[in-house]
Amino acid sequence: MSDQTIPIPATAQIKLDGAALVANWHALDRMSGTAKAGAAVKANGYGLGAREVVGHLLAAGCEDFFVANWQEAREIEGLTVGKASVSVLNGVREADMRFAVQSPAKPVLNTIEQVARWRNSGRKCDLMINSGMNRLGINVGDLGSDLLAGLKIDIAMSHLASADEDGPQNSDQLARYKAALANVPCSRTSLANSAGIALGSDYHFDLTRPGLSLYGGIQRQELAERIQPVAMLQAEILQIRMLESGDRLGYNAQYIAQRSHPVGILGMGYADGYLRGFSNRGIFLYKGMKLPVLGRVSMDLIAIDLSQAADRREGDWVDCDFDLRAASAQSGLSQYELITGLGQRLFRNWA
Amino acid sequence: MSDQTIPIPATAQIKLDGAALVANWHALDRMSGTAKAGAAVKANGYGLGAREVVGHLLAAGCEDFFVANWQEAREIEGLTVGKASVSVLNGVREADMRFAVQSPAKPVLNTIEQVARWRNSGRKCDLMINSGMNRLGINVGDLGSDLLAGLKIDIAMSHLASADEDGPQNSDQLARYKAALANVPCSRTSLANSAGIALGSDYHFDLTRPGLSLYGGIQRQELAERIQPVAMLQAEILQIRMLESGDRLGYNAQYIAQRSHPVGILGMGYADGYLRGFSNRGIFLYKGMKLPVLGRVSMDLIAIDLSQAADRREGDWVDCDFDLRAASAQSGLSQYELITGLGQRLFRNWA
Repeated sequence: MSDQTIPIPATAQIKLDGAALVANWHALDRMSGTAKAGAAVKANGYGLGAREVVGHLLAAGCEDFFVANWQEAREIEGLTVGKASVSVLNGVREADMRFAVQSPAKPVLNTIEQVARWRNSGRKCDLMINSGMNRLGINVGDLGSDLLAGLKIDIAMSHLASADEDGPQNSDQLARYKAALANVPCSRTSLANSAGIALGSDYHFDLTRPGLSLYGGIQRQELAERIQPVAMLQAEILQIRMLESGDRLGYNAQYIAQRSHPVGILGMGYADGYLRGFSNRGIFLYKGMKLPVLGRVSMDLIAIDLSQAADRREGDWVDCDFDLRAASAQSGLSQYELITGLGQRLFRNWA
Repeated sequence: MSDQTIPIPATAQIKLDGAALVANWHALDRMSGTAKAGAAVKANGYGLGAREVVGHLLAAGCEDFFVANWQEAREIEGLTVGKASVSVLNGVREADMRFAVQSPAKPVLNTIEQVARWRNSGRKCDLMINSGMNRLGINVGDLGSDLLAGLKIDIAMSHLASADEDGPQNSDQLARYKAALANVPCSRTSLANSAGIALGSDYHFDLTRPGLSLYGGIQRQELAERIQPVAMLQAEILQIRMLESGDRLGYNAQYIAQRSHPVGILGMGYADGYLRGFSNRGIFLYKGMKLPVLGRVSMDLIAIDLSQAADRREGDWVDCDFDLRAASAQSGLSQYELITGLGQRLFRNWA
């Protein structure tokens, strides 16, 4: 057996900027006006690492976190207990009850059945009102004192379906949510996600729930000047070779050299979340020069053009252009999918 | 603090069929003729769980495993040590050497620098010959007794770039590989991946290296009747609601009901690897009926049409049509990306 204590450095990593994450939260908190900003940290902190994200945002002053399920609540509990409120957006199933009733986290009750399930727990909860997205949440017509009697509702929230667009659905949802609140006794109100914050003070209520923009995502132009990138991909050059004119590269020869030039083979691939959509379209960077991805992205490997980085050697590292808007345009994937899809093999290097 | 020992069942899972995995390996081993089949288990066993995969295949008689890096070799070492050979395809970097020289796994030497690095270790290695894919591997012109002196080469391998197609690149690579072997002292030879096995006995050599097809992937028609699905996705219905005609569903209202019908909201989303390409295109299944995905897939949630499954209740589970060829056609993602992209939040339920 080998010595398990010997470190094996990863061949690719996510370089994470904790200061940028904190600056983004402060920017979104300021944009939220008199409302306080919370933070959506579901899906393992949008793939970046929930515990690191929560640690940074707690220190910045964030006091409300949103996760998808009870496993995610448990994952951050050691950090949040006694310091912040944690809401479980996907609600409470019968199978969750044994854990949920003794957890410091709260369920967001989404259904009439969940309300009945939680009513006698004697513990706080949140409530999701369906204002027109028709995903999770209780229909406005079902709300009323009979249904909600006995509940200790902290946040009565709803969720915007199209906050990244300027159509009428936003104001429709706003009106329906406001009307519904008249029938819902609660401590706090909350409607806006990241893009919703940019819709203005009518949408802010007591608490906002930014997600993607905390992590550098920009879905509305209003956010572009205020949000910084948080995650940068970097990969090691495992091999450098010289292609000659006519040489085929990678799976299905999706790149054929038209001249002699060097290529670098990087230790990252679609199994790390850098999907095939980046084939012949992704960009790596070195000293301001662009190093295009050549051919098809492999499972564990990517080929890039080193013509503009002839001094690079095997074992050197290069940056990936992972600005989420640029990478989304390159790959055809949404900013959300790009960030939450980053694989477990990538070392998360927080600075 | 909550009780950490209380189980919290996942809201979605991968149901894994170990018998099908083993049957696929036996089928590929038989198709390999006089060659023996190994198994590519890189990227955490193509996302399904390397340790479970290796456990099943060891019991079936597989004796050669292929991983991408030394972390992956270490992950399975407790299972493979003394029982099977493990090859590290991405080679050996300087940063790997301290671990590598005391690991029972072998590096696949890809570069002249790696050969120099390993030469004095006194330990076995494999060798990757670049027969025309121009990804990893030593160029044929660089091979020779000077370069290889002192190496203890087990497998001298190459890799096919286009084995899933019938173009001339396969025979070109075959000819170049065969010619190169004349200059390479080795114990065993290996060229074919899953699709390469279907190219016939000329491509089999001593050892084949199936990957995707072990896990149910089919890239060539010859494999379709011999390969069984291994991974099925299943998700729990968190909420059922009735849509009325005109109701908008999910992000950006990408589905608008044209009639009254029930929908189910499932506890799975693109953060689990079921990407937005399945929006309005994916299919779930219940008792032989198709339950189409409606609207845009969310990070943690998917909406499906329950018109054909009116007896389903909150807390019930539904299967996903995750036949890799069908799911690839639905989503626009390759079979490879679909399987390796399955997220860590999904419970891996081996049967």
